[in-house]
Amino acid sequence: MKILIVLAHPDPTSFNAAIAQTAADALVANGHETVLHDLCAEGFDPVLKRAELLREPKLDETITRHIEDLKSADGLIMVHPNWWGMPPAALVGWIDRVVRQGVAYKFVAGDKGEGVPVGLLKAKKALVFNTANTFEKREREVFGDPLENIWKKCVFGLCGITDVTRRTFSVVIVSDLAQRRVWLEEVAETVSKSFPKE
Amino acid sequence: MKILIVLAHPDPTSFNAAIAQTAADALVANGHETVLHDLCAEGFDPVLKRAELLREPKLDETITRHIEDLKSADGLIMVHPNWWGMPPAALVGWIDRVVRQGVAYKFVAGDKGEGVPVGLLKAKKALVFNTANTFEKREREVFGDPLENIWKKCVFGLCGITDVTRRTFSVVIVSDLAQRRVWLEEVAETVSKSFPKE
Repeated sequence: MKILIVLAHPDPTSFNAAIAQTAADALVANGHETVLHDLCAEGFDPVLKRAELLREPKLDETITRHIEDLKSADGLIMVHPNWWGMPPAALVGWIDRVVRQGVAYKFVAGDKGEGVPVGLLKAKKALVFNTANTFEKREREVFGDPLENIWKKCVFGLCGITDVTRRTFSVVIVSDLAQRRVWLEEVAETVSKSFPKE
Repeated sequence: MKILIVLAHPDPTSFNAAIAQTAADALVANGHETVLHDLCAEGFDPVLKRAELLREPKLDETITRHIEDLKSADGLIMVHPNWWGMPPAALVGWIDRVVRQGVAYKFVAGDKGEGVPVGLLKAKKALVFNTANTFEKREREVFGDPLENIWKKCVFGLCGITDVTRRTFSVVIVSDLAQRRVWLEEVAETVSKSFPKE
């Protein structure tokens, strides 16, 4: 299988980067083709341009390449910290620019864009790994954990991916090395369970 | 009063731009000082840099100016479309980079960042104007309307702003000029009610 990993964290030595690398290693060990986009390291521009809103949009080379990686993927893995109940802007903009109408979803004939879209992606399974500095109970009860609906309903749900596993590691800021090692083992296990040896 | 308007839409002729301009006009008519940041027109870079994560962060001139505008504001108005249950990346990154610890919130002494922050902003009132191409009922029932918690709980709640009014205009893509005029009148009324003549 071909699996696309998208990482959004500005620090290449972050725990998020370690999660993405651990996921990539597990996939390679299982014989899968793996594409890892480290959006911040690549300098991905997350601001959708006016020309991309047109009926016949102008898409630059970078966006075209990301679209090809998304369309050809059999599975998706997103890795990012929970910032304000959202992914960092780098990843939000990747969604805005790459997960496009006609690529990841379409509207049925006669629909002017106000209706119910149909998913188009080949990938039918997605994993989301988040880090947070808020305890899980507080995230859910005080903040309503917007990321849960963003990934499962708004993004993957709309694109027709219903098999979504999300795991948040928290509280990262006060975690020690031993704890992080245990978490990375869990990442490898989760990835192998979703995308086993073929 | 000094009111900060933040607009995020790539098209300067969009309905979102009209909302922001209508809000600005209503504020000026009421005698308020108004600052309008059109993030896309300004080319605001929404990607938080690694150096901004440091304990003694390096902030560039643009971010420093945005921080001053945020700190000095008596009221806030956010204008943006609902994309994937989130603001466009331009505004997500404005939150990531500008609504910083030490500017908009702080942690109490002894807290390593896993605890409960205290709001620092002078502004105690915020308005959020959204546009959407999803019917309100569907947004709430199918997608869980993440923007409601993002603005009220995650962002403004965390910064100590509890007086938040949010209004979503939908379905914009099939709305006609007459409908949009009525909506803009509602924007002016809402702004004047929140920030009346002094």
